[in-house]
Amino acid sequence: MKTSEIAKIIGAEIPQDLDDLNIDGLKSPESANESDIVFLSNPKLRDSIESSRAKVVIVKKGTSISGKICLEVEDPYLGYAKVAQLFENTSSLFTDGISPYAIIDPDAVIDKSVSIGPGSVIGKDVHIGAGCKIGANCVIEKGTRIGSSCRIDSGAVIRWETSIGNNVIIQSGVVIGSDGFGNAREGSKYVRIPCFGNVVIEDGVEIGANTTIDRGNLEPTLIGKGVKIDNLVHIAHNVIVGEDTAIVAQVGISGSTVIGKRVILAGQAGCVGHIEIGDDAFVGAKAGISKSVPVRGKVTGYPARDFMTMRRIEAAQSSLPDLLKEVKRLKDEILKLKRLDT
Amino acid sequence: MKTSEIAKIIGAEIPQDLDDLNIDGLKSPESANESDIVFLSNPKLRDSIESSRAKVVIVKKGTSISGKICLEVEDPYLGYAKVAQLFENTSSLFTDGISPYAIIDPDAVIDKSVSIGPGSVIGKDVHIGAGCKIGANCVIEKGTRIGSSCRIDSGAVIRWETSIGNNVIIQSGVVIGSDGFGNAREGSKYVRIPCFGNVVIEDGVEIGANTTIDRGNLEPTLIGKGVKIDNLVHIAHNVIVGEDTAIVAQVGISGSTVIGKRVILAGQAGCVGHIEIGDDAFVGAKAGISKSVPVRGKVTGYPARDFMTMRRIEAAQSSLPDLLKEVKRLKDEILKLKRLDT
Amino acid sequence: MKTSEIAKIIGAEIPQDLDDLNIDGLKSPESANESDIVFLSNPKLRDSIESSRAKVVIVKKGTSISGKICLEVEDPYLGYAKVAQLFENTSSLFTDGISPYAIIDPDAVIDKSVSIGPGSVIGKDVHIGAGCKIGANCVIEKGTRIGSSCRIDSGAVIRWETSIGNNVIIQSGVVIGSDGFGNAREGSKYVRIPCFGNVVIEDGVEIGANTTIDRGNLEPTLIGKGVKIDNLVHIAHNVIVGEDTAIVAQVGISGSTVIGKRVILAGQAGCVGHIEIGDDAFVGAKAGISKSVPVRGKVTGYPARDFMTMRRIEAAQSSLPDLLKEVKRLKDEILKLKRLDT
Repeated sequence: MKTSEIAKIIGAEIPQDLDDLNIDGLKSPESANESDIVFLSNPKLRDSIESSRAKVVIVKKGTSISGKICLEVEDPYLGYAKVAQLFENTSSLFTDGISPYAIIDPDAVIDKSVSIGPGSVIGKDVHIGAGCKIGANCVIEKGTRIGSSCRIDSGAVIRWETSIGNNVIIQSGVVIGSDGFGNAREGSKYVRIPCFGNVVIEDGVEIGANTTIDRGNLEPTLIGKGVKIDNLVHIAHNVIVGEDTAIVAQVGISGSTVIGKRVILAGQAGCVGHIEIGDDAFVGAKAGISKSVPVRGKVTGYPARDFMTMRRIEAAQSSLPDLLKEVKRLKDEILKLKRLDT
Repeated sequence: MKTSEIAKIIGAEIPQDLDDLNIDGLKSPESANESDIVFLSNPKLRDSIESSRAKVVIVKKGTSISGKICLEVEDPYLGYAKVAQLFENTSSLFTDGISPYAIIDPDAVIDKSVSIGPGSVIGKDVHIGAGCKIGANCVIEKGTRIGSSCRIDSGAVIRWETSIGNNVIIQSGVVIGSDGFGNAREGSKYVRIPCFGNVVIEDGVEIGANTTIDRGNLEPTLIGKGVKIDNLVHIAHNVIVGEDTAIVAQVGISGSTVIGKRVILAGQAGCVGHIEIGDDAFVGAKAGISKSVPVRGKVTGYPARDFMTMRRIEAAQSSLPDLLKEVKRLKDEILKLKRLDT
Repeated sequence: MKTSEIAKIIGAEIPQDLDDLNIDGLKSPESANESDIVFLSNPKLRDSIESSRAKVVIVKKGTSISGKICLEVEDPYLGYAKVAQLFENTSSLFTDGISPYAIIDPDAVIDKSVSIGPGSVIGKDVHIGAGCKIGANCVIEKGTRIGSSCRIDSGAVIRWETSIGNNVIIQSGVVIGSDGFGNAREGSKYVRIPCFGNVVIEDGVEIGANTTIDRGNLEPTLIGKGVKIDNLVHIAHNVIVGEDTAIVAQVGISGSTVIGKRVILAGQAGCVGHIEIGDDAFVGAKAGISKSVPVRGKVTGYPARDFMTMRRIEAAQSSLPDLLKEVKRLKDEILKLKRLDT
């Protein structure tokens, strides 16, 4: 691919007097050859770019590096993402088409452009749209609908009647549509509550390895458009996650909680059930959220508080042992003063 | 199913002059049709019930809703659970019986009423009792014994010589009988400790998706009768979990810890190894438990403390930044007083 | 196996006048028969050893127990580990060799001593070295290289081009080589960043059930020699874990963080991205690490602080509610004093 084509795709001006090199890969500065492109998103790494063999560099507007062809963009990290997509190898991991070792129910409806790896099991009345790539040893249970251009990686399990949009990525070991953890109590015994809802996953969602998403009790669990979910995340029954929200690894969201749009839930945070996290909110890593968070709220800590409040409390905590001593000292001084006064 | 039959099953009195409607499903108030039953466990949702098309409602004793047939019970949520079980679809997800694509060791002993999905692998000397339903792409390794009426969902892995009782549910992606994380140290190197114990799972246990339960070192890891475990829970080697305990998502229990009966461990809590959590104890969400908890103890926080103590500390923490300033002010005042006194 | 042989292997002196019994298993004191060996690593358990039927006991140097043959070693727990390895059953869980129900790409290169269970899928150009044992329903994607004597348990997924050394154990449900959670932002939308790096796992690494290790963006994610990883751990893209480090269950390590050698990360701890944890550092259970930790640093808490500092703060927190009252009292006293002075 020509440097000029890449420039166009990432929205960089074509450099003057461009030596329009052919680029055949995106690499780290250390591993790059002359025909690779690299990027500079962190100014601290400028040295490694200068000493790299790469000739073409994606940089922030206004940056020039001597001896390099600089493609200037507002956000070099975004430029990197777009170029990485250009060079992604999207060929089948197994044979093209449906492996003869896949087990497909005769009542499944599968577009002829779909690839399915060996050992995958596709149930009754499953529909799979054009361009989907399904790995090996996946299970897609009966009645599930999958749109077009989805990627379902080896070992994922999509349980019955799940609804999946277009351009969805579901990584290995993910379980979608497991039963919710709902139990009524009769004396000291729990009584299981079967779930009749399903899971609905909208377009452009990505779900990391070994994450679990439970089906709803009566209505669906809903993952909105463009939501990005990392590994080992737990999303309970009836949860609704708004569009373009990002959920980092090992986060847990309890039943019936509603997460807004463009929220960020940092790693290992947890939300109790039946609360709302407002649009554009930010929840810090490991935060324990037991109350609703307002729109654009920024909370952290355990129990979670407003971000700046929490930072002040944390700073004060460091002084706490000294404070105890100080108060003791003051108490003694007051005692002395009282004696003087009497 | 007749309304009068449902009333009998959930222990409600048959309403006078009952129009004994046929009910064919349990729905949310919004989705219900005239032939669906709904329930009202939270008085705030009364409006949604009133405007629902459903005619029959499970309600708390003493509640009446005009225009609805009310089945009055002590606990409508429990009533809901029981009715949900009545309407659960328990037909096979794949073909009835043993799929021709399942791989069954000739020395496995499988009741003729068992269903096993495609791609599942059943090892040598495995016994599977009447009425069990096993999904697709499961693995049940050699010597495992499974009682009757169990459900093992697609993609679960039951490792060698696990012992499973009756009416057990093991969801997708669960791993039972993995090696414990036991390592002796020889200088700076770890020496692996093979595990000879197995995992014993008693009757009525339910285990959520992608949960892991390690086998014991020399004696079994034991999950007692009626224990309910949510998704992504980690239960280490030699742990004993008492009857009717509930373990919420992403909890971790370290090696050799003993959890009592009817304990609740809320989400993301963690217990160190070799401690005891007493019967009927409650452990708050995200709590970090480093010491044993007494019978009926109620603890939370990190590090965990008695629940009320922790609430007081948390409240005081909010005042901590102000307290620092206050103490500084007092110090200044004392200084001034001292000057006056001299 | 003769007692004298075992003594030699664990480095114990042969006891004088040894009755060189044949030992055929390692058991708990309660379950042991006369021909089993037991160990005493915790002096509190001496009674159980004394009342055990076992005749031969691994003990700490200088310990004698009447009526027992004592094999004295520096570290009985290490002795136990070594003897457990002697008695481990390493026979195939399924048939020896490659199951006729495994699906092997014709371009895979597999040593003839390898065993592979039913339903496992081995991709193109995969190399598997001598003595490897692979369970049922595993997936090993194309281009992956596996050294000798590795154990890959049922249901594990090793994604494309992973590099695995010798004597590695990968337990059930593990996912190696999933995509990193990398997203650039364009307005309110996330743009996915494909990963070109792989995962490199060095010799002697052990990985617990349902753990996930993401592939690197441009360079590999690296797990160093002898690293031991427990269940449900998340290791993000580009992380480097140094030799002989131990990572306990449910730990999360964010992208590009570098963990030193011989580090211990206790259960449920979390590290943000782009930091360094020094060699021989210790990170307490549930700690939230947001800054680099120095060599031999010992940190805990959330946010994490030096271990002793944290212990002092925790102790002081218990006095916090009383402190608030005390300061109020002092304030009143000062007020009184001021009145006296005027």
